[in-house]
Amino acid sequence: MDQGAILAINAGSSSIKFALFAGTVLARACHGQIEGIGAAPRFRAEDGAGMVLADTTYPPGTTHEALLGGLLDFVTAHQGGVALHAVGHRVVHGGTTFDRPVLVDAAVLVQLDALSPLAPLHQPHNLAPIRAIAATRPGLAQVACFDTAFHCTMPAVAAHFALPRALTAAGIRRYGFHGLSYEYLARRLRVLDPARASGRVIAAHLGNGASLCAMRDGRSVETTMGFTALDGLMMGTRSGSLDPGVVLHLIEQLGMSAEKVSELLYHRAGLLGVSGISQDMRVLLASADPAAADAVALFVYRIVHEAGALAAGLGGIDGFVFSAGIGEHAAPVRASVGARLGWLGVRLDPGANARGAGRISAADSAVAVWVIPTDEEAMIALHTRETLDGGGPEISG
Amino acid sequence: MDQGAILAINAGSSSIKFALFAGTVLARACHGQIEGIGAAPRFRAEDGAGMVLADTTYPPGTTHEALLGGLLDFVTAHQGGVALHAVGHRVVHGGTTFDRPVLVDAAVLVQLDALSPLAPLHQPHNLAPIRAIAATRPGLAQVACFDTAFHCTMPAVAAHFALPRALTAAGIRRYGFHGLSYEYLARRLRVLDPARASGRVIAAHLGNGASLCAMRDGRSVETTMGFTALDGLMMGTRSGSLDPGVVLHLIEQLGMSAEKVSELLYHRAGLLGVSGISQDMRVLLASADPAAADAVALFVYRIVHEAGALAAGLGGIDGFVFSAGIGEHAAPVRASVGARLGWLGVRLDPGANARGAGRISAADSAVAVWVIPTDEEAMIALHTRETLDGGGPEISG
Repeated sequence: MDQGAILAINAGSSSIKFALFAGTVLARACHGQIEGIGAAPRFRAEDGAGMVLADTTYPPGTTHEALLGGLLDFVTAHQGGVALHAVGHRVVHGGTTFDRPVLVDAAVLVQLDALSPLAPLHQPHNLAPIRAIAATRPGLAQVACFDTAFHCTMPAVAAHFALPRALTAAGIRRYGFHGLSYEYLARRLRVLDPARASGRVIAAHLGNGASLCAMRDGRSVETTMGFTALDGLMMGTRSGSLDPGVVLHLIEQLGMSAEKVSELLYHRAGLLGVSGISQDMRVLLASADPAAADAVALFVYRIVHEAGALAAGLGGIDGFVFSAGIGEHAAPVRASVGARLGWLGVRLDPGANARGAGRISAADSAVAVWVIPTDEEAMIALHTRETLDGGGPEISG
Repeated sequence: MDQGAILAINAGSSSIKFALFAGTVLARACHGQIEGIGAAPRFRAEDGAGMVLADTTYPPGTTHEALLGGLLDFVTAHQGGVALHAVGHRVVHGGTTFDRPVLVDAAVLVQLDALSPLAPLHQPHNLAPIRAIAATRPGLAQVACFDTAFHCTMPAVAAHFALPRALTAAGIRRYGFHGLSYEYLARRLRVLDPARASGRVIAAHLGNGASLCAMRDGRSVETTMGFTALDGLMMGTRSGSLDPGVVLHLIEQLGMSAEKVSELLYHRAGLLGVSGISQDMRVLLASADPAAADAVALFVYRIVHEAGALAAGLGGIDGFVFSAGIGEHAAPVRASVGARLGWLGVRLDPGANARGAGRISAADSAVAVWVIPTDEEAMIALHTRETLDGGGPEISG
């Protein structure tokens, strides 16, 4: 097996996050980001201990090619003498075609471009760095890793809306997202608690974006995000599930444009909209304002509501995993969710929950509850190596 | 207590359904409908045994006042010498103001008119007969009975969307519908199975419109319909719950108007859209076409999914009630739902389910499952008498 380093890239509209992984177990060597793309780009990198390795400002107008060239030069200089083996990219949408990571070539890029209408705000930005690197380093292998691919195992009943068949066939269906996170969590759970991992598990990715995934034997069978990342749980600034009649009412009765409604539902709803204070769970938990408590209560209620729906699909649960910013760090949220899922067999150990690492359920809990830090970049690196080598190491950590 | 008869009216855009109830137990004396309002109105009535009592065609252009005058003349002639005590009306929307039926006067009518933007397709048609009767029979008591009122007991977390507080305060929230049906079922269950009725019950109103209601001690604590009757379960021609991002995509990416999307989601989705065959569950169950089976499977899956979500709010369930057209008559649908809810403690008695009346759960089922025919007109009549008399008989049947 090639021991070359893997660069994982997660590119958005104005920033590119990256992490470099090296060695047999793909240990994280360094990570960082390029911010302010399109304005005054700034490149920062630090090592695993948090020591700053680089902090560079680029002139306005610096091209994607030049910025990514600088990034590749930096990682080449910081990988300890090991060749850069490949670059892995997070790509939000793989449609129904890409049910696993894929080595990118010109033909694949055409297919990925064709999926942009399904994720117009993200897909083009995910593809731009692939193009830039292909132009400047044509010999460097690049692998696209999809947020949707993990959910390709969902049965039709979990993936289809009750819409005319022609619309479903045209791609108006549930895809689900956060797939790289869920696959990472599924693999980690298989190491930590193999018996539960082979059973019925709900994983909760609770970050600024938030969703749940129901898994059987480590494979997705249902998830709360749908056609877009707007559906399902209440999020930092997104509404989550919403009566479609509300969207129509806002347009037809209140005269809003679809663009305004989109801005409302993506950026002014969720924890921010309900609290009127902040989208940050830490701020809300620290606030004495009743509106902050309202927002937290609704956030918890919606998790419990959706968890019940997913549990119905699974026929009960054996395990529950909390992850991402809120899932890993907001003990009061975990405590509230755990208490309200007592009827499913969940019983948390208050001390373990307060510590917030590893297994947090009581010894006699019928459902094993875990806090597992997610690492989408590590999953990208693993996928990239596996895609190139046809296999790879088990997950580290 | 006044033993006068009560006329229950359920008015839509082009038809008015009615039923006449008389006696202490409010037995149904006759019922019927006026169809083709606005075109060539036809009045039909039959007695409880199905014998036709009237079948009259009116000239095109006959006014609401004249049609309702004809109806009142008919019931006066067919109530067996008892005075018509009052008229009760189904009114779809009571907003947050009307948490129970109300005796209508001019001031109340103004308030009900103000709620029309929340249900523009239904509220004006519900109010038209009230106005017509008030104009021609000013002395006749009229009571408005709301589809939303039963759900006013829902806690804020079940009623609020994760939208900005100002929108919630302006009325963009869950109201829930089918309330007259659920209240009838709750009262019937209290007679049939008082122990379960005082516990945690999910009632399933599965007609051409369909929803679930979670009840604690006979009061609604959550329901699947939301701001509109579009949300929640898959229905005959309605989509039910749908990622709001799909509505935005249809408008922004596919160029549909909001009006076209509304027509799609209300009239071309659901069982009809998924099957491409029919909105009628009887037709789909009798079909050998795989598309019909797909539609039925999705219909069942969505009931199970939403039942899990409601069970999470209740912390488990003690009872489950099937009602309305599909719930009362589609034994295969009940069997599939029951089997998939086995993990909640549901176990049907196959023979009782095939017969489809009364209790259909096995003797050892932890959850009592009932089939109870709903009767919204009877609930309107009961409400009307109770509103006028400040109390009334228990439900009959």
